[in-house]
Amino acid sequence: MPTATISRPIPKTKRLERLAAQVDQTLARLLPAAAQSPSVVHEAMRYCVFSGGKRFRPLLCLGGCEVVGGPSRQALSTACALELIHAYSLVHDDLPAMDNADERRGKPSCHRQFGEGNAILVGDALLTLAFEILSRNGMPNAMAISRTIGRACGTVGLIGGQVLDLQMISQPRGSTERALTEIAQRKTAALITASVVAGALAGGGNPSSVKRLARYGQGIGLAFQLLDDVHDQEGLAQALGMEVARAQAHRLITRAVAHLEPFGRRADTLRELAMWLTATA
Amino acid sequence: MPTATISRPIPKTKRLERLAAQVDQTLARLLPAAAQSPSVVHEAMRYCVFSGGKRFRPLLCLGGCEVVGGPSRQALSTACALELIHAYSLVHDDLPAMDNADERRGKPSCHRQFGEGNAILVGDALLTLAFEILSRNGMPNAMAISRTIGRACGTVGLIGGQVLDLQMISQPRGSTERALTEIAQRKTAALITASVVAGALAGGGNPSSVKRLARYGQGIGLAFQLLDDVHDQEGLAQALGMEVARAQAHRLITRAVAHLEPFGRRADTLRELAMWLTATA
Repeated sequence: MPTATISRPIPKTKRLERLAAQVDQTLARLLPAAAQSPSVVHEAMRYCVFSGGKRFRPLLCLGGCEVVGGPSRQALSTACALELIHAYSLVHDDLPAMDNADERRGKPSCHRQFGEGNAILVGDALLTLAFEILSRNGMPNAMAISRTIGRACGTVGLIGGQVLDLQMISQPRGSTERALTEIAQRKTAALITASVVAGALAGGGNPSSVKRLARYGQGIGLAFQLLDDVHDQEGLAQALGMEVARAQAHRLITRAVAHLEPFGRRADTLRELAMWLTATA
Repeated sequence: MPTATISRPIPKTKRLERLAAQVDQTLARLLPAAAQSPSVVHEAMRYCVFSGGKRFRPLLCLGGCEVVGGPSRQALSTACALELIHAYSLVHDDLPAMDNADERRGKPSCHRQFGEGNAILVGDALLTLAFEILSRNGMPNAMAISRTIGRACGTVGLIGGQVLDLQMISQPRGSTERALTEIAQRKTAALITASVVAGALAGGGNPSSVKRLARYGQGIGLAFQLLDDVHDQEGLAQALGMEVARAQAHRLITRAVAHLEPFGRRADTLRELAMWLTATA
């Protein structure tokens, strides 16, 4: 199943729009200039990052920072690293040996636009830049942030999910609800959870807040994949049926939002993100 | 040109053998168990890492640590991260869209053994694990180490070199000495230099020692690619002529070793590595 990138044009709240604009500005600053040699890779990195992504993971990260009382700008570079990782995963996922997708968000996929060899390297470069950015962080929790994200996109998380997904493509009879849920948890929910947690760490959150936010992230992450599958009429939505999948997603979102209760108004960004997600399906 | 992996069986000194064995033991511990799900990716990671590599980069890292007075075990996990990065670069470099190599060190290349989709993910997983390991480091210089390595394998270094190399394959008339030297510097020398520097940082080296060691690394790194090209009768050796390339490599090594002079006996590992390299061609 394609990586979740819910792309229906649901308008964001003003707060979310403002934060997304900050993420875009920071991404533009952090990515190497397109003219820098070798320009093809830098041009392609910008092509993939500025292609209409909703910045869901960075917004979760900024929201996670606000919840624990940090100013969201303290999590901006971490938020951008998460978007670069998401972009890398899409570039590699679209390759002919994987999902073989010709298009991504209505434009030619990276390998269709820049060639397959370059696309492999562009993915590598986005992932590498993400970790380089994380290692420029001067904050006390910088190592913990990098560790959290590293684990989430390793073989216990994102990559493990892609491997299982690849196996399912070749053996579709293994598409049980349980197997699909494991893929969704690794491939989508792990990085989404890490996004909120990393934000909370960037904001100096204490362990009990971080734990509570991880639960919010897990629910939102699984709901995200469910709703994406409902939209594409595949994966979990196909296994469960559309209505069951939608209802399960809404239940997960409601429960996730309940975890935010003790944080009061500081959790408004995370609440608005949950509402935005609910509105998508 | 293929990434440099000089693979002639030149015996190492006892000291280098002992350190290489420590690297292998640590790699075996750091890599996820092959049985862990999804096992194909973990099995493949071990297949690629334990395939007769010379551990040149980890040894440079341990040597860099010793030079500044650190016990080499302080740099062991960093040394292993460097080997994982090297292994990732070979897996992706061998892919059909890149060098399209069926074999690596006399065995089927990763994509020939595990399929192309899995090979892309195995490379991604090796790179991700490397950065995760670096973020587990509890040392004061941990962030600087991660930053140094991140930069060396980004688009200013390793990946940039691969992109330029890919362009040269499609436009071989651009194979001038200058262009080939830039590729060698990015693709090979950058990570080799970062290996010594990261080791020195892990050992708590001061900035002037680190700077001096970077010069050693740059010379050794370029010499490494020159001698690899001499062995394969291609790239720089073809552009310069075999004898000129060999002589230039030996000159670079001699100059590199001269940078070690102020460090006395503590630089013996780095001297032995330089001698080992000289013996390969």
